[in-house]
Amino acid sequence: MAAPGEFEIIERYFTQSLPAQSVRVGIGDDAAIVSADGPLAIAVDMLVEGRHFPVGFAPDALGFRALAVNLSDLAAVGARPLWATLALSLPASDPAWLDAFAGGFFRLANQHGVALIGGDTTRGPLTVTVGIFGAAAATPLLRSGGRAGDRIFVSGTLGDASAALEHLATPPAQHSDEAAALCARFAWPQPRVALGQALIGVARAAIDISDGLVADLGHICRQSGVGAIVELDALPLSPALTALYPAGRAEAFALGGGDDYELCFTVPPAAADEVRRAAEALGIAVSDIGELTAAPGIRGRRDGRTEPLPAAGFTHF
Amino acid sequence: MAAPGEFEIIERYFTQSLPAQSVRVGIGDDAAIVSADGPLAIAVDMLVEGRHFPVGFAPDALGFRALAVNLSDLAAVGARPLWATLALSLPASDPAWLDAFAGGFFRLANQHGVALIGGDTTRGPLTVTVGIFGAAAATPLLRSGGRAGDRIFVSGTLGDASAALEHLATPPAQHSDEAAALCARFAWPQPRVALGQALIGVARAAIDISDGLVADLGHICRQSGVGAIVELDALPLSPALTALYPAGRAEAFALGGGDDYELCFTVPPAAADEVRRAAEALGIAVSDIGELTAAPGIRGRRDGRTEPLPAAGFTHF
Repeated sequence: MAAPGEFEIIERYFTQSLPAQSVRVGIGDDAAIVSADGPLAIAVDMLVEGRHFPVGFAPDALGFRALAVNLSDLAAVGARPLWATLALSLPASDPAWLDAFAGGFFRLANQHGVALIGGDTTRGPLTVTVGIFGAAAATPLLRSGGRAGDRIFVSGTLGDASAALEHLATPPAQHSDEAAALCARFAWPQPRVALGQALIGVARAAIDISDGLVADLGHICRQSGVGAIVELDALPLSPALTALYPAGRAEAFALGGGDDYELCFTVPPAAADEVRRAAEALGIAVSDIGELTAAPGIRGRRDGRTEPLPAAGFTHF
Repeated sequence: MAAPGEFEIIERYFTQSLPAQSVRVGIGDDAAIVSADGPLAIAVDMLVEGRHFPVGFAPDALGFRALAVNLSDLAAVGARPLWATLALSLPASDPAWLDAFAGGFFRLANQHGVALIGGDTTRGPLTVTVGIFGAAAATPLLRSGGRAGDRIFVSGTLGDASAALEHLATPPAQHSDEAAALCARFAWPQPRVALGQALIGVARAAIDISDGLVADLGHICRQSGVGAIVELDALPLSPALTALYPAGRAEAFALGGGDDYELCFTVPPAAADEVRRAAEALGIAVSDIGELTAAPGIRGRRDGRTEPLPAAGFTHF
C-alpha cells in the first residue's frame, strides 16, 4: 500500500466517528460546526515522543492514551464528553501505524461517545495534540472549591503508571504478570469520566492526577487556600506495585509519580458515605486518604506523626 | 533570569487575555469553562519548525502567525472569534523567546477579541498547535455550497507568502523593499475575519487559501460537485511579486503557492456588486477571477483559450 498523503490520511483513518446530533459539520471543511445546549468544558493536552511516551510505543496504545489523558481533564471538572480534535505530527506516513493509532483512538472515543470533529496532520517529529470538549455542569468541579476539614479521596490505585516507566523498555514477552499489569496502567489509562460526573454537587474540589498526587493535591491546596494531611498507610497501592517494590519505593511512586489519571477530590465529611456509594455503583474503588487543613502545606502522617511531603511531581520542563 | 518551568511559563506569559464575559474559568484549572449562545465553529492548525516555518523564524511573528492561520479558518466559515487554546512544544525555556512569542500571539488575539482559555507547554521539538473557537452563523459558509455560474472571488493578492519562502533565509537587512514586503506577508498574515462574516448570506461557498489557489478552489469544486474556470489575467498580484519575478513565475506562485491566507469564495453573479461594496466598506480588495462551471476540473483561461491547471498545492506529506 502506498504511503497515504495528508488528505488520504484524514479520509482513510480519521472519519470513523459515530454520528452525533450535536455535530452539524464534522471533518472536511475549514472548521467544524457544532452546537451545545449549555456551558462547555475545553482542554488540550500534548504528548511528545521521548518525553511523554517512549520511542517505539505501541501506536494503538498511543492513540488510546492521547485521548484518555484529555478525557481525564473532562472527568476532573465533571463534564460529559462531546467532541475532540486531533493534531498529529508524524515522521512518516505508515499505513499500519496509522491504522493501529486510529484504532486505539476510536476505541476509546466511541466508548465515550466522542466525535472527532477536526484535526491537522503533518510530517514532523512524533507529537499528538488532542483538544477535548464536553458539556459542563452548571456548577463544575474546580480545583479552588476545597475547604479545611474536607476529606481527601482518590480513585483506583496510585503509582502504577510511573513504576511502569521502569518496565516499558523491556520486551513485553519478558514481563512478569506484575510488570505487565503496571505497563497496562500506563498504556491504557481509564479516564474516570463517569465518576467525575457523579461527583457534581457532592465533591467540593477535584483534579486528575497527571503530575503525581503531591503535586496535583498541591494545586487544589494552593487554589483553595488550604493545606492537607495525607494518611500514608491509606494510599491505595496495587498488588502488582507492592509485589515488585519494597514499601518505601511503592509509596514514593504513589506520592510522586504521575500518569495514573485517577481523580483526587475533596468532600465535606458528611458526604463521604454518599461518595462511597456513588463510586461503588460505578464499580470504581475510592479511598479516603486524608483531610484538608487550614494550615498550608502538604504533610504525610503515619503512626500519629506528620512530616512535610516534598512536591516531587513531574513537570514537563 | 532563570529558565522558567512549565507552570511559570503559563503564569508569566500566557495569562494576558483581556476579560471576556463568555469565559467563566480560563487558564489554571483542568479545563476551561465557557459558554456560547449558539453554534460554534472549531478548528485546529499545527505549525512545525522546518516544515511550516524556517528554523530561526522570529518568535513574535511565529506567535502571530500561529493564531492567524487559525483565525483564517474561522474567517472561511464566517464565524466570529471567541477563544483559543495553545499547545506549545519548545526545545528550551528561553524567557526572551517566550516573551516575544506571547507578544505576537496576544497582539493578534486582542485585536480580534480572542481569549486564550487553555494550553499545554512541554519540552520537545518546536511545534505550535492552536485551537480556535468562534460563534458560527446560523448558515455558515461551507465549501460545499458553490453552484455552476457562481463568480469566483479572492481577497487581497496571491502568491506573496510562497514567494517569500525564497527570501526568508536572507538576513532582513539585505532585503530589497520588495523582498521585505513578501516576507511580511508570510510573517504577519492578516486573517480576513471581518470579510468572512460580511459574506454570510451573500457568498455560497468559501475557503481560505492555505495550500494554494488551485488546491483550495479544488476543495470547493469537489465538495460542491462543480468545476471552475480561472481568468489568468485577473489573478491579483502584488507590485512586490511582479517586480521580483517574471510574469510566468508570479502566476505560478499565485496559482500554486500556499500560505497567503486570503479567502476564496463564490457568489451568484447578481450578488457580485454587493460583495464589492461590502469589501470596500472593510477596506479589503477583492477580485473576480472566474466562474464555477458544471463541467468538472479547474481550467485557466487567457485570450479566450483554456487549459487544465495542475493542482500543485502544498500538502504536508
